[in-house]
Amino acid sequence: MKSYPGALEALMVQLRKLPGVGHKTAARLAFHLVRRPAAEIEALAAAILEVGERLVLCSSCQNPTESDPCPLCSDPTRDRHKLCVVEFPADLASIENSGAFKGRYFVLHGTLAPMQGVGPDDLRLEKLRQLVADGEIEEVILATNPTVEGNATALLVGEHLRPLGVRLSRPACGLPVGADLEYMDPVTISRSLAGRGSL
Amino acid sequence: MKSYPGALEALMVQLRKLPGVGHKTAARLAFHLVRRPAAEIEALAAAILEVGERLVLCSSCQNPTESDPCPLCSDPTRDRHKLCVVEFPADLASIENSGAFKGRYFVLHGTLAPMQGVGPDDLRLEKLRQLVADGEIEEVILATNPTVEGNATALLVGEHLRPLGVRLSRPACGLPVGADLEYMDPVTISRSLAGRGSL
Repeated sequence: MKSYPGALEALMVQLRKLPGVGHKTAARLAFHLVRRPAAEIEALAAAILEVGERLVLCSSCQNPTESDPCPLCSDPTRDRHKLCVVEFPADLASIENSGAFKGRYFVLHGTLAPMQGVGPDDLRLEKLRQLVADGEIEEVILATNPTVEGNATALLVGEHLRPLGVRLSRPACGLPVGADLEYMDPVTISRSLAGRGSL
Repeated sequence: MKSYPGALEALMVQLRKLPGVGHKTAARLAFHLVRRPAAEIEALAAAILEVGERLVLCSSCQNPTESDPCPLCSDPTRDRHKLCVVEFPADLASIENSGAFKGRYFVLHGTLAPMQGVGPDDLRLEKLRQLVADGEIEEVILATNPTVEGNATALLVGEHLRPLGVRLSRPACGLPVGADLEYMDPVTISRSLAGRGSL
């Protein structure tokens, strides 16, 4: 490995902690920053600090927010009877962006991954249980990803909530809209045939 | 455009008729062939001729076959009560590969595309109607792609078959298995939420 000036190496160490940033990308980003005007570098640093200072996790849905409870949780027009459970804040954003869900959310901040040491205790399940036990929620949509980890997590969360008597559901698996059957994987084709609906 | 020797240009003209082959790819393929031993070129030509000579469309399912009816249509172990309608032979192959369907098929060889001059008469609908009217089929799964053209085609085919009193269905739309919600398109997310099933 090459040796860089201390400050540059320290920046690269920090950058490498970002998702998808390895040695090469970290070096490219760092050298880019070195060449920018001081004002631009300061603005970036300030924005990063700001995030650290101003964002907290909503005490209800666990999504990052500047005000607690977050705008979604305190919005009186949202359906308080439906709760959508997702793995990460980015999943919540995707579902919001689809406009198909008008209820409330809960962010697990992870999936069950025993091999990586993520067990049931790490998924804020007790917070979720309390939220559902508190009352108004009638249906919990377990919108974890349709992956091995996501399915296992949905089952685990479901078993946790089943004693509360709420309806538990899972988004449909099938062909993504616009897909070409020729290129779909066999498992998805099987699921879409098993779940076929009337025309 | 460059001018090539007659035989080479004639080969490129033929190659360009293949799907996904434009001027550059045709030239690359043609120059590749020019450099190969005569035996290899002859083997390719023979294989192409063989396809033209030996393959016909199955008179029942319309899939290319060397024997009519094709092995699928003449297989007594296939479920004769379910018929799966697809756009192209490659779609049939994908569904077979998934192992999720044990019934019979019908290949439309296209989708409704009025702008490209493909109307109802081009889709072998009369052959399909006869096949269904002949009797044993109870359910027709309209497995055209979940695209605008595929959906329109499924509706058209459905209306054609509805008077025959068979059950009509469509494969489920939803999240492909293994998908990441963060990167799914809004329409697919909407469909997967609308079609959610009990956990």
